[in-house]
Amino acid sequence: MTTDTARTRLTPEERRTRLLELGVRLFSTHTIEEISIDLVMEQAGVSRGLIYHYFDGKQGYREAVVRYAADLLFAQTAPPPGGEPLERLAASITAYVDYVVANESGYRSLVAAAASGNEAMRAVYDSTFEAMGDRFFADGPSIELADTPAVRLVIRAWQAMAEKLVLTWCADPTVMSRAELQALITDSLPLLITLV
Amino acid sequence: MTTDTARTRLTPEERRTRLLELGVRLFSTHTIEEISIDLVMEQAGVSRGLIYHYFDGKQGYREAVVRYAADLLFAQTAPPPGGEPLERLAASITAYVDYVVANESGYRSLVAAAASGNEAMRAVYDSTFEAMGDRFFADGPSIELADTPAVRLVIRAWQAMAEKLVLTWCADPTVMSRAELQALITDSLPLLITLV
Repeated sequence: MTTDTARTRLTPEERRTRLLELGVRLFSTHTIEEISIDLVMEQAGVSRGLIYHYFDGKQGYREAVVRYAADLLFAQTAPPPGGEPLERLAASITAYVDYVVANESGYRSLVAAAASGNEAMRAVYDSTFEAMGDRFFADGPSIELADTPAVRLVIRAWQAMAEKLVLTWCADPTVMSRAELQALITDSLPLLITLV
Repeated sequence: MTTDTARTRLTPEERRTRLLELGVRLFSTHTIEEISIDLVMEQAGVSRGLIYHYFDGKQGYREAVVRYAADLLFAQTAPPPGGEPLERLAASITAYVDYVVANESGYRSLVAAAASGNEAMRAVYDSTFEAMGDRFFADGPSIELADTPAVRLVIRAWQAMAEKLVLTWCADPTVMSRAELQALITDSLPLLITLV
């Protein structure tokens, strides 16, 4: 698609974004560790020097892609501005399931990287889920929740449960339908909140 | 405590078990990666050769310790033989929280190792939680559950939620009391099961 002529018209920011978008696409079939400079050079048709110029090497590129992918996750799971609280939560959950299904390989390797003590990856992972949790208390919550440390703890644990549900379901989707999975995740939060 | 004279009286199996018990104790303050042959030699007063003889080196020792620690987790969380179903579940959860609190560092590194693609560690981790989940269907279930793939999926996700609850609570125990944490984990399972 991208010809040399077209590429020369891109601004540096656009070119950088294209490389990040490529990384996210590679995530759907590759783990973080499988994303090499050679692979990116081959797929993007750019030089090693350009990738180093923008990202300071392989690790910098991987971290930038993970950050970009996490930003996409955060943006895509934004609840719609209006509607019934539980419907808004359901829309957000649907988007979350869609995201994990579309980026399963990369998502699994982000979980692994965050758990394995890679501080940069862990920070991206933790701050993304914290930001998604903050939505319950910031402008236009999808459902009404009291902002207490106990409620925040339950939200964080519910997110971990939702992640395990989706990843386990991905490995064997015959267990229940996607709609049932989404309803299970959505309906479990208000139930769990009744316990604190 | 252990004198040379006493040590010579140990059978090979007892000596091996002592080294595994040492590894579990080290787990309370060290991550898996921090457990080195030198550390074990120093703490156990045994030779490098003996550790290689029993465990075939550092990786073999770490895996054997993780397996031993997972077996302890499984044994300690066994629900008591009699009593009310929810009380039996509560006893099992109390034991789980006790275990994680007592072995927090090692438990966190097991989670990290399982997530990071170390196949041996992942297998120990997954099979332990599967075995703990199986208890709900095998001899003397702590609460009555239908054995369906959907229920098993919810149990696995509930375990992930419980793990996140305990580990997050360990990092900031001011959020709620230990009794409240245990009640939250115990009471959430029957609630979640109503959704499938």
